[in-house]
Amino acid sequence: MKLAVIYDSRTGNTRTAAEWIAEGMARVAGTEARTLSIDAVDAAFVGEAKGVVIGCPSYMASMTPEMRTFLMQGGRLGLAGKLGGAFATEQYTHGGGETVVQSLLTIELVFGMLCYSGGAALGKPVIHLGPVGVNANVEAHNGMEHYREYFLVYGERFAQKAAELFG
Amino acid sequence: MKLAVIYDSRTGNTRTAAEWIAEGMARVAGTEARTLSIDAVDAAFVGEAKGVVIGCPSYMASMTPEMRTFLMQGGRLGLAGKLGGAFATEQYTHGGGETVVQSLLTIELVFGMLCYSGGAALGKPVIHLGPVGVNANVEAHNGMEHYREYFLVYGERFAQKAAELFG
Amino acid sequence: MKLAVIYDSRTGNTRTAAEWIAEGMARVAGTEARTLSIDAVDAAFVGEAKGVVIGCPSYMASMTPEMRTFLMQGGRLGLAGKLGGAFATEQYTHGGGETVVQSLLTIELVFGMLCYSGGAALGKPVIHLGPVGVNANVEAHNGMEHYREYFLVYGERFAQKAAELFG
Amino acid sequence: MKLAVIYDSRTGNTRTAAEWIAEGMARVAGTEARTLSIDAVDAAFVGEAKGVVIGCPSYMASMTPEMRTFLMQGGRLGLAGKLGGAFATEQYTHGGGETVVQSLLTIELVFGMLCYSGGAALGKPVIHLGPVGVNANVEAHNGMEHYREYFLVYGERFAQKAAELFG
Repeated sequence: MKLAVIYDSRTGNTRTAAEWIAEGMARVAGTEARTLSIDAVDAAFVGEAKGVVIGCPSYMASMTPEMRTFLMQGGRLGLAGKLGGAFATEQYTHGGGETVVQSLLTIELVFGMLCYSGGAALGKPVIHLGPVGVNANVEAHNGMEHYREYFLVYGERFAQKAAELFG
Repeated sequence: MKLAVIYDSRTGNTRTAAEWIAEGMARVAGTEARTLSIDAVDAAFVGEAKGVVIGCPSYMASMTPEMRTFLMQGGRLGLAGKLGGAFATEQYTHGGGETVVQSLLTIELVFGMLCYSGGAALGKPVIHLGPVGVNANVEAHNGMEHYREYFLVYGERFAQKAAELFG
Repeated sequence: MKLAVIYDSRTGNTRTAAEWIAEGMARVAGTEARTLSIDAVDAAFVGEAKGVVIGCPSYMASMTPEMRTFLMQGGRLGLAGKLGGAFATEQYTHGGGETVVQSLLTIELVFGMLCYSGGAALGKPVIHLGPVGVNANVEAHNGMEHYREYFLVYGERFAQKAAELFG
Repeated sequence: MKLAVIYDSRTGNTRTAAEWIAEGMARVAGTEARTLSIDAVDAAFVGEAKGVVIGCPSYMASMTPEMRTFLMQGGRLGLAGKLGGAFATEQYTHGGGETVVQSLLTIELVFGMLCYSGGAALGKPVIHLGPVGVNANVEAHNGMEHYREYFLVYGERFAQKAAELFG
């Protein structure tokens, strides 16, 4: 089962988060997970993927213009019916990561995806809408590393659900 | 396959919308669709349902306090893993129906549901996040009746997806 | 007192809505209101404006990529401290106009603007977050014209508040 | 100049955050800032206040039912025209604090308030929509204390803007 993590990254933090999600996905047997930058998306792989997680940094509590432009491809991405997830990075805890995740999920719903986060039903750590990492040391005492486990767990739960539905 | 439409209604418009959704669901063979007011939810039926759609009127561009309180039951509703949808009614086109739908879907994601609207992938009418009806004649020349087809189509598409996934 | 309405328009509907808002603003004595396409923003005028309203059509229940890219200019637009408003057009009542308005206001808050819609406090018509017009005849029996009064009233209320605060 | 911080708190973390905001407000000369639990709001004080900040914990990435019910009083709270702000606490960085802040600001806009966060225009720390504190040690190495400075700075900036507009 193929799963894709599509991301827009500027400084590398969001790419790191994408890689952690893919690493978590790979814990589920039979999963082939790939991270794809919006600059170089493998359309064939995405087309075959049963689930796609999309993420980017928060700028002004919003998704990046590059991600917004990328998603304008709409139906041509062929995401309808796939399991959909979202994640973000931000520079402050109040920096808009959640509003970015919510806005990415909104577009995924318009694409006709099945949006899923795992939620509170799978116990701690509770993932609400999708994982968010604070990408600076301004707040977190050890930067992105502090959030690693959330991204791993999220990726694993997402892959389990995809396998259950489509495996 | 059981499907539930849970609603909070004050003047009857949201109940009408819920009934249209259930009528649309029933177009899919093998579907038993029921509308349930939050005042009298049949917990056993909801527990057996493969999909649940939740809706309420917009007050202050937000869900009603009664719906917010109802949803506080959280995990006890047993919604994790079910297909989830949302709808709303409002008094003006700009009256908050969409923000209510988005906020209902947000809670459904936290419950661990698979959120689905059909989206743009199924052609016209495009349903973005969920159907919204304007419940007054202030704007619409024929009130809620004007939106009937959207609710029917939404219910049918939702039931088709539920049957495809869990039927 | 200068007031600006900045818009992104594709088919002309959002430009029409912007013009109605400016027309409503001009009802307040001493107001010079101008509509500015994001393609040709008069930066000097915006800099002198006491209030700025921003609007665009909904695509995928989100602002257009062009508007998102335009707003990336951030602080260079010099909007901090000004009165801020937002509006949208959409193709269906559930088409994302409100989520677009909410996302525009989110960015305006990050810019340090004072966001204002008039709200319910000024009586009918209640404007919740900002006016939204349905830009097709799919639903509305007379298209955008159906929403004209909302945009006019919104523009007038916005200008009154700007005059009260900064006039 | 009177300023009010209205909060709903369960374990005390949100009350602590409210007190920090009021402490920051009091740094601005001539300010009388009070924290008011939704259980015991001094309506006369709120009526005289030039600005009101509202906050609560995130439950299911949403405001608490108690806060939603409290805000249903709508126009009777007399908040129209006042400066409005919002804050939240959450149990995880991705725990819904920002979506709560956004939903509180949405209701404040419907009330006819002037919503303001300070935003990015005032330099670091950038406050996007409003301050959010993570109320557990699950993530933050020193709990709420880690976020103290954000709440103080936010309160101070809010009071400065209120004094500038209405002082």
